Amino acid sequence: MQAVDIIIRNGWLLTMAPDSRVIKKGAVAVRGDSIVAAGPQDVLGARYKPWKTIDACGGIIMPGLVNVHTHAAMTCFRGLADDLPLMTWLNEYIFPAEAKLTSDAVYQGALLACAEMILSGTTTFCDMYLFEDSVARAAKEAGMRAVVGEVLYDFPSPNYGPMEEGLKYTEALIDRWRDDPLINIAVEPHSAYLCSPDLLKRVKAIADRNGVPVVIHLSESEKEVDQIREKYGKTPVEHLAEIGFLNPGVIAAHCVALSKNDIRLLREFGVKVAHNPESNMKLASGISPVPELLKHGITVGIGTDGCASNNNLDLLQEMDTAAKLHKVNRLDPTVMDAPTVVRMATFDGARVLGLQDLIGSLEPGKKADIIVIDTRQPHLTPMYDVYSHLVYAVSGHDVVTSIVNGKVLMENRVLTTLDQDAVIESVNRIAERVVSKI
Amino acid sequence: MQAVDIIIRNGWLLTMAPDSRVIKKGAVAVRGDSIVAAGPQDVLGARYKPWKTIDACGGIIMPGLVNVHTHAAMTCFRGLADDLPLMTWLNEYIFPAEAKLTSDAVYQGALLACAEMILSGTTTFCDMYLFEDSVARAAKEAGMRAVVGEVLYDFPSPNYGPMEEGLKYTEALIDRWRDDPLINIAVEPHSAYLCSPDLLKRVKAIADRNGVPVVIHLSESEKEVDQIREKYGKTPVEHLAEIGFLNPGVIAAHCVALSKNDIRLLREFGVKVAHNPESNMKLASGISPVPELLKHGITVGIGTDGCASNNNLDLLQEMDTAAKLHKVNRLDPTVMDAPTVVRMATFDGARVLGLQDLIGSLEPGKKADIIVIDTRQPHLTPMYDVYSHLVYAVSGHDVVTSIVNGKVLMENRVLTTLDQDAVIESVNRIAERVVSKI
Repeated sequence: MQAVDIIIRNGWLLTMAPDSRVIKKGAVAVRGDSIVAAGPQDVLGARYKPWKTIDACGGIIMPGLVNVHTHAAMTCFRGLADDLPLMTWLNEYIFPAEAKLTSDAVYQGALLACAEMILSGTTTFCDMYLFEDSVARAAKEAGMRAVVGEVLYDFPSPNYGPMEEGLKYTEALIDRWRDDPLINIAVEPHSAYLCSPDLLKRVKAIADRNGVPVVIHLSESEKEVDQIREKYGKTPVEHLAEIGFLNPGVIAAHCVALSKNDIRLLREFGVKVAHNPESNMKLASGISPVPELLKHGITVGIGTDGCASNNNLDLLQEMDTAAKLHKVNRLDPTVMDAPTVVRMATFDGARVLGLQDLIGSLEPGKKADIIVIDTRQPHLTPMYDVYSHLVYAVSGHDVVTSIVNGKVLMENRVLTTLDQDAVIESVNRIAERVVSKI
Repeated sequence: MQAVDIIIRNGWLLTMAPDSRVIKKGAVAVRGDSIVAAGPQDVLGARYKPWKTIDACGGIIMPGLVNVHTHAAMTCFRGLADDLPLMTWLNEYIFPAEAKLTSDAVYQGALLACAEMILSGTTTFCDMYLFEDSVARAAKEAGMRAVVGEVLYDFPSPNYGPMEEGLKYTEALIDRWRDDPLINIAVEPHSAYLCSPDLLKRVKAIADRNGVPVVIHLSESEKEVDQIREKYGKTPVEHLAEIGFLNPGVIAAHCVALSKNDIRLLREFGVKVAHNPESNMKLASGISPVPELLKHGITVGIGTDGCASNNNLDLLQEMDTAAKLHKVNRLDPTVMDAPTVVRMATFDGARVLGLQDLIGSLEPGKKADIIVIDTRQPHLTPMYDVYSHLVYAVSGHDVVTSIVNGKVLMENRVLTTLDQDAVIESVNRIAERVVSKI
């Protein structure tokens, strides 16, 4: 018998490994930050002696979810303004509120987002915002895995001031968090409409030099396409391709308004796509042609976007919406089937972030990012198919245990790294200030 | 001080009365099955002495939700088959499974549905299925308010056999449940494509004679429209109008594929509409022109449809989807704003079912159908706007207390009328039989 730290047993095991099997009485063994074994519980039970055993009670044991696009600290603005034209929403609410942001508010807002994400089964998130060092610190404190990067654009930022300082801030972030086991830094120009070709090229050089990914909003709406076409005579994707910006390290969020040639270019350059169906719906941006992207072999993950345009960070609900939206959009109930959507939220999400060697599936040697779902509930009865349940019936509230890098961050819905009430109270105080300023 | 049975206090009170105000420190007083008062808690506290006090802990106190279209017992088939073409799904899974249904299976499936609905804040549902006396008994046992009716069509039913017997079964239901405080019977022909004009006329006569509503599936997809047009040379709505079927007592489910003239007819005859966005998405039926219906003054409520095409009965999630789907479909973020959607799920839902004098708002004299939502959670922090939260952030899991007709059916997420584990176990056994038969 080999000693291990944790065995999670007595559940339907979804490894999401390439040979993806569902094992009815499955188990995962964890030692330190890594998975030692995943398979039938009888086999693991005979081989490993755990310090701690977690009983999944017949529920689902699976890889932690990967939220490939969010703005965590926007929890501070959850529900501040809804049902408004995009420009009114941005200019009269979000931008004025963001202009007053502080490093501490971003830290508190990100802690709240981490609490919400851990409670709903997300173990890794990719973030773009202001004061991203605060987001990195919050994720680290929460024990979550994250890809974070400071948003860059041509005009001054409420955080770093002039653009030049933004580039320095980004390089400092890269230096500060290099080799951190949980925090990964990305270079994050906002979009082709807020960043000049010169800025985009400089950003790209930083990413290349440091071997880090690039996150950018891309083709979020037809309006954006019109704007870029007017300025550069090309679609946003064509424009980025032409200035040499696209490569497999680029994570493009939204990709709603795409031409056939855009899709060809995304595939040719190996660009990864972050699909945010609920935000695209709520802001009336449009519907990304995800079934088409998948058919072309483009890697697509699922994101919630920020809380101001969703208004929650529940990736399991987002999976449900993603599956249903494309069916009705294509008038074809067979597109975006449940196994595809589960893969997008786990293994493909990891590939989008370039973390596929670390996370996204439960395989020996990978990091132990694992969640457990409690299925002993009326709305999850009966269970004919695990994938179907995950997409169409389970919500984030059904996640009972979340583990990241071998550390239990939530057990029986109680957070272990964060003081939930204190985090809530801090953001409530921030919200009072937000209201008084708008 | 007047004695009352229950006071619910210390919450944001959403009465959904015509003068709809939100009262920050609100309370509702209940005596017997009815609401005595709803208003500021100071005022109520000075006037009423309750036998039992429920502390909403700063959450939301509001009318119970009204699910205007479901097939409750289809919980037995939740996730049995997904992502399939409609005809494969129906002919190879749902119809064979339904052919083996028994009165007891429907009873158990409906009990499970009631458990799920009570746990997610629905207090009234409108049902169409086989063996509806079992559904009525289940709702009664659970303590829920329901409108139920046996599905009628031209061919024999696994319940009553030949169609003639279906009409008798319906009349017997009406007699048996007449004057019941919770159960209301409707006459329920399946659709224009499964019911001859003769059957529809006889059904209508039964409804008129007994003063009960009629529930029918109507224009669920373009395919249905094509089918009816081929047979009768008219759209389904035109066809029903011509045979004298339409009036304000008709509850039409789906209404996805509507012409301008159809909308004019629905308005002219005062037909009520049950909107089921998630089912319409999942089955790829299409998108109902709800903003257009509302603009024309047609009353629209929200339904989940059955668990085989959703796959849950969470009306709060359905509200979220309804709000977002129409925004992206119309490319207009201002349509289906949060207050409109909350009204559809409460007061307008009651109007759809003809129960607006009894339920749908918290007003003195109305029946006490009330829910409480716990907002002290990360995903509901902060709260700038109650309506926004209900539509975009709250899910059914956040409902902590459900009261119907003055009776507490759930408190602190524990069901009081149903044995949750026993109900789950019964349907798990039914599911084993379903699997063995397909």
